[in-house]
Amino acid sequence: MQQTLIYSSPQNEFTDLSILQIQTEALKAIHDYLYEQKLIQLMPVMLSPITDPLNHETSDARINYFGQELQLTKSMIFHKQLAIASCTTKGIYIMSPNVRLEKPLKRDSGRHLIEFSQVDIELREVKALKFMELLEGLIISIIVRVKEKCTKELKSLGVSLRIPKRPFKIFSSEELKKKYGEDFEKETSLKEIDPFWITDYQREFYDKEDPKRPGHYLNYDLIYPEGFGEALSGGERDFKYEILLRKIKERYQNPDVFKFYLDKAKEGKLVASAGGGLGIERLVRFLTKIPHIRDVSPFSKVPGEYYQI
Amino acid sequence: MQQTLIYSSPQNEFTDLSILQIQTEALKAIHDYLYEQKLIQLMPVMLSPITDPLNHETSDARINYFGQELQLTKSMIFHKQLAIASCTTKGIYIMSPNVRLEKPLKRDSGRHLIEFSQVDIELREVKALKFMELLEGLIISIIVRVKEKCTKELKSLGVSLRIPKRPFKIFSSEELKKKYGEDFEKETSLKEIDPFWITDYQREFYDKEDPKRPGHYLNYDLIYPEGFGEALSGGERDFKYEILLRKIKERYQNPDVFKFYLDKAKEGKLVASAGGGLGIERLVRFLTKIPHIRDVSPFSKVPGEYYQI
Repeated sequence: MQQTLIYSSPQNEFTDLSILQIQTEALKAIHDYLYEQKLIQLMPVMLSPITDPLNHETSDARINYFGQELQLTKSMIFHKQLAIASCTTKGIYIMSPNVRLEKPLKRDSGRHLIEFSQVDIELREVKALKFMELLEGLIISIIVRVKEKCTKELKSLGVSLRIPKRPFKIFSSEELKKKYGEDFEKETSLKEIDPFWITDYQREFYDKEDPKRPGHYLNYDLIYPEGFGEALSGGERDFKYEILLRKIKERYQNPDVFKFYLDKAKEGKLVASAGGGLGIERLVRFLTKIPHIRDVSPFSKVPGEYYQI
Repeated sequence: MQQTLIYSSPQNEFTDLSILQIQTEALKAIHDYLYEQKLIQLMPVMLSPITDPLNHETSDARINYFGQELQLTKSMIFHKQLAIASCTTKGIYIMSPNVRLEKPLKRDSGRHLIEFSQVDIELREVKALKFMELLEGLIISIIVRVKEKCTKELKSLGVSLRIPKRPFKIFSSEELKKKYGEDFEKETSLKEIDPFWITDYQREFYDKEDPKRPGHYLNYDLIYPEGFGEALSGGERDFKYEILLRKIKERYQNPDVFKFYLDKAKEGKLVASAGGGLGIERLVRFLTKIPHIRDVSPFSKVPGEYYQI
């Protein structure tokens, strides 16, 4: 028997127009910047036999299409790796809606939704630092534009935005964990006043393991300051068959599930890349300093609620 | 027992880079144009208790979230009507992925996918002609941009694009049906050399019925020439409770399903609007003159096939 939902949703279809205006400028800034960077824009994939296994527990969302089971996209990681391998271009991006059926207890985090969108980016044959540079430029161009175009809206929300300086600070998860314990991400987010990076998380098999330091990873999260938490999650990618297979097994996942993708790796058809996904609703929450992500969009779907629309 | 799929998919992850470059320019043109028109951009909704009932048969795609049944979006029509009513602005748009589980026999149409994206637009308190004007400007700005920026890509595909003149031709479905019979849309598409409108289709309950000519509708499709068929489907909207309720019943649909939406109409909280959705993959197919929509995107999902990725 399935757990029933505890909360009826206070959700409605109304969102403050100032917030939507800021979102519109932020989205325009994203498209302008990534276009100037000469990235190719791909269309989103919502259904596929495989999707991101993720490193935190969510229920799977599956549908059946004439006998074939398809999963709703949790992230386009595998599609990005396949596309960037066959697309001899600098990089790609997708405005990608994701469905992650979070447990009801995530309701009060203030930053989880069961559906959200991310601008998901992958750069071909680059290292982490190159991606981080591109992302810092993106974040700054968004903030600069919103400050310039939305003076009235920011004022009505009582928000003043700082333009961060490059390069952003970089911490390793190891050093922060020593200092703050398991809640290091939250503690550092509360302490900092500008967005910053945390590197080297032990997580999904596709994030590149450091060949010089096994058990360490060439990945990164971008974290907002003032307690707003995670902005982006990403990394360099592993792409060699033997390494991917070993890491899948180490995580007790079933290699058969990823057959199409692993076959491509075996044939030597994947390439090195680095990328990551920037959540749009969390970005707008940070730009507007709204306490709960529920209030950032009309029709927002907070975990553990009963939705009316 | 469920019907099994007949065809294994020739799909792969590769798409001609010229096509993706043209898509990138087309998407940029869309965002630039709608931003200049001062429309607010909303984020897509993928899951909701209700979605578009559509006027052609598809299987429903549903998931269960802790005891609650949610449908995958076939179109954001109800969300658009609710948003435009509460958003006192000129108009809104969404880059909206849709899932429509088409029957396998649609496989060979060359223009159906089980997931696709549309730029879904709704203008507040305007008549059909105002929306059609905006759309004609959009189509022209896309074609002008692609011709200007993608000379090399169009040449490599052997495509030459015509810039259509405004206003586009307008036909009524009634006159075309008299002339060509049931296949009037296809026949006219084959005959014309520029995009054109067909008005007055008898279809979904939310499309506005002409108060002066009951049984006729203030809606429209934009059709591509050269046999490429439907580009956009849209209309003015009915928004008064009694009218919506009558039309739901006339179509043998269950009003209880649409309770949240109908309650808003009853409270007088909906407003007049006109809008429509322009399919992105079909747009790119038209711009590149690719025979089958399968070849427009990597990971394209043609009806009735078994997907590898």
